[in-house]
Amino acid sequence: MTALRAAGTVNILRPISAARSAASTRAFTAAASLRMASAAKPFHPDEPKAPVLKTQSIPGPRSSQHIQELNKFFETRSVNMMVDYTKSVGNYIADPDGNLLLDVYAQIASIPLGYNNPALAEVAKSPEMVDAIINRPALGNFPSHTWGDLLKSSVLKVAPKGLDNVYTAMAGSDANEIAYKAAFMYRRQLERGGPEVDFTPEEIESAMRNESPGSPQLSILSFKHGFHGRLFGTLSTTRSKPIHKLDIPAFDWPQATFPECKYPLDEHVEENEKAIQASLDEVEHLIKNWRVPPAAVVVEPIQSEGGDNHAPASFFQRLREVTRKHNVLLIVDEVQTGIGATGKFWAHDHWNLQDPPDMVTFSKKAQTAGYFYRSQDMRPNKPYRQFNTWMGDPAKALLFRGIVNEIERHDLVSHTARVGDYLYGKIEALAKQYPDHFRNLRGKDQGTFLAFDNPKRDEFLAKAKSFGINIGGSGATAVRLRPMLTFQEHHADILVEALEKIVKAL
Amino acid sequence: MTALRAAGTVNILRPISAARSAASTRAFTAAASLRMASAAKPFHPDEPKAPVLKTQSIPGPRSSQHIQELNKFFETRSVNMMVDYTKSVGNYIADPDGNLLLDVYAQIASIPLGYNNPALAEVAKSPEMVDAIINRPALGNFPSHTWGDLLKSSVLKVAPKGLDNVYTAMAGSDANEIAYKAAFMYRRQLERGGPEVDFTPEEIESAMRNESPGSPQLSILSFKHGFHGRLFGTLSTTRSKPIHKLDIPAFDWPQATFPECKYPLDEHVEENEKAIQASLDEVEHLIKNWRVPPAAVVVEPIQSEGGDNHAPASFFQRLREVTRKHNVLLIVDEVQTGIGATGKFWAHDHWNLQDPPDMVTFSKKAQTAGYFYRSQDMRPNKPYRQFNTWMGDPAKALLFRGIVNEIERHDLVSHTARVGDYLYGKIEALAKQYPDHFRNLRGKDQGTFLAFDNPKRDEFLAKAKSFGINIGGSGATAVRLRPMLTFQEHHADILVEALEKIVKAL
Repeated sequence: MTALRAAGTVNILRPISAARSAASTRAFTAAASLRMASAAKPFHPDEPKAPVLKTQSIPGPRSSQHIQELNKFFETRSVNMMVDYTKSVGNYIADPDGNLLLDVYAQIASIPLGYNNPALAEVAKSPEMVDAIINRPALGNFPSHTWGDLLKSSVLKVAPKGLDNVYTAMAGSDANEIAYKAAFMYRRQLERGGPEVDFTPEEIESAMRNESPGSPQLSILSFKHGFHGRLFGTLSTTRSKPIHKLDIPAFDWPQATFPECKYPLDEHVEENEKAIQASLDEVEHLIKNWRVPPAAVVVEPIQSEGGDNHAPASFFQRLREVTRKHNVLLIVDEVQTGIGATGKFWAHDHWNLQDPPDMVTFSKKAQTAGYFYRSQDMRPNKPYRQFNTWMGDPAKALLFRGIVNEIERHDLVSHTARVGDYLYGKIEALAKQYPDHFRNLRGKDQGTFLAFDNPKRDEFLAKAKSFGINIGGSGATAVRLRPMLTFQEHHADILVEALEKIVKAL
Repeated sequence: MTALRAAGTVNILRPISAARSAASTRAFTAAASLRMASAAKPFHPDEPKAPVLKTQSIPGPRSSQHIQELNKFFETRSVNMMVDYTKSVGNYIADPDGNLLLDVYAQIASIPLGYNNPALAEVAKSPEMVDAIINRPALGNFPSHTWGDLLKSSVLKVAPKGLDNVYTAMAGSDANEIAYKAAFMYRRQLERGGPEVDFTPEEIESAMRNESPGSPQLSILSFKHGFHGRLFGTLSTTRSKPIHKLDIPAFDWPQATFPECKYPLDEHVEENEKAIQASLDEVEHLIKNWRVPPAAVVVEPIQSEGGDNHAPASFFQRLREVTRKHNVLLIVDEVQTGIGATGKFWAHDHWNLQDPPDMVTFSKKAQTAGYFYRSQDMRPNKPYRQFNTWMGDPAKALLFRGIVNEIERHDLVSHTARVGDYLYGKIEALAKQYPDHFRNLRGKDQGTFLAFDNPKRDEFLAKAKSFGINIGGSGATAVRLRPMLTFQEHHADILVEALEKIVKAL
């Protein structure tokens, strides 16, 4: 069934080459076989048909030499793979030794449309891009007269429902930090009695000493296993792994338990409902009782770095109700989940909220970053309160405009939903065959945002390269799939075949 | 004298057009007049000869319309000027109403080589740039095999003496935040007994709760009026203005008084020496007694946002001694002062330190960002401790390579030293004529990094536009000059003429 569905959609999914030549856009029949789906016109016609392995192990000799040289002046202990980007293409990542791996990690989920995407190359070569690169503005002071139109045709064109204002930023971490700042300013303004009420002399004076009331005792509530960045504010909300946090001073901010759900979610409704209730009770308790009161709750739609933890939409719907009830803002961190990978443009679209989040942060596949917010009431009451020199980067907004156009032109969000279904079905079948190696498969109906647990996870990830796959992990035991939006059924076939080989070799 | 010196150097300062055509590189005699200096071949041959004013006031009608439209979804209360970057050229910034102002603010000191610099346009159009834009790597995991060479030919080519390692970042704020993180990790490692000593179970467990000892009670010591960014860690060290800090939670970190010096520095040696001693005593006292012990001291060579506060080299030399004595790291924040504007490539080059700072942070004119550090011993003891998805941006490093090449090709650091002397001399003359309006002139021998106080500063800045000048302020009363590195004597003449008109109109 899944295969048929996937095959039947090939005519909708217009490959890049086909889109350019109407003559080549031929319809596949609904009865097309899996084989035909796999043979569907690729988005990236220059991709290899399969991974290419040239060296016994990765890194090979040339890569190792580059790593050794780089290590003289730059951190290399976290290097996963030395890459030749000029030879990488579409879903395939190349190294200087001639290896070409199918990449389902995609630069920690941040490459949207494949390596060397020709449509994005055109954007990169455009006169507007040259202008943006060599004349980088201080956006808060000296925006270009084209900045408004650029925002409307990029970031705002895909604004989440109900959130039609934006502050732009550089990356996920600072997008979250400035969202937190907005939450604190909003909260203090409410406490003060509105935007027209001025700061007291005591606030002004104490802020310069980092003391209350000017530097208030307020917090951001986050969830255990959550990840929101590694700057000082965001790191205080990050609860993924000790290695992310050790030795760094942190704020005394509270954490609630993220619902500890069983997968597939829809087969454990009752138990999961209990987990949801326990989590929400804890949230409410912390909001009411934590020694440093929360101004906002921040949550990922799917906890990504922390182990690919999913929860049903009902959890988030009720979290919205709880935060609304207590006048605490809700910040949805879509840095990793946003931009189509879950089969919706924003993962929180799956929740069908009537009352939207107060802020949604984004980055990664957008290549730019920032936070969307509900209304101008949420802007701080004076200028220069939310401000920095660059406040984003028009060059990256131009790139995002190109990305949004390609996503729309090829209907890549629906595409990802369908390929995700296809891939989920195939891994589900594998899990029946190798239940120990594909535990807790999750991400059903969440596009290609899939994960499973493997007891020898680190070995699994390392071995994957020798079967031609670049794949990442999350949390302690999860293998996380983060393919690009141009990942197709034939890539899924290659991946699944390799997954089986990997577990057989473990 | 100043005029003669400036004129005599015109043959060394090779304009862009002249550099391309040897025939046009003619030598000026040392006796060349000021008039000749002003008529020297411009770096930017397409610049207007003088500012062009088309509308009664700025913003004009078209700019106002753009601001109104942008305000629907983006913060505009801090907009200083709506800009048409396609029409901006060299030292001149254009708006959509046809106004062209001499720009000595340069996007808050972040434009190095003029708008629409043709050499940088070539870099922006290069295949390497296209590759970097469309294939953005997660640098810590998947660096390009060309990344090492790119670093060596850009960032590391201009590394401060003694600091030949780098962590790259996105902007000044996060460069400082990760430098602070490095300081905390380094300090805790020392306390723990070295890099091979592992974390205790208690540290691991408490870090996940944001509690000590895993999240240690340690601080960064900064100076009153200092500015280091507006993320949560950096904002805790920023002491510029209440509006930057109000309503944002802060760490309980200490601040020392920056030496309260009199200008010109060399005419108040004895009084300034007392101010230096008082400051250093306070630093030492805070290091020994502050309730949250400092792991590092962070200092700007010239406090920039906080009012253009200068101190003699001896202060910094002795600050290095004090920090060394107490085993506290010294971080020099060169985000605004770096990349040539003070007449040295790094402002701290003026100090002639035998024992270099432990870290130097940079951004702005570099277009990229990061921190330099002394040795590999300062890398955290395990991978993934200093890590984030992008960790910088090769596209911006490519741009910086182009900037460094142009700075070297045109000897722009020496050039800025000389033009700075020339400009200082002319403003010094103005200050004799209008002592109330040009108070505390500062920046002698610091290139074009000049400032003075004006009692009606905000009015001064606003009025400057009507005389064709875009100029910024710092602190409460300072007018700060931050021209680009391609600012020449003839620009100085136009600027000084306008400065006189502005104060006459106040």
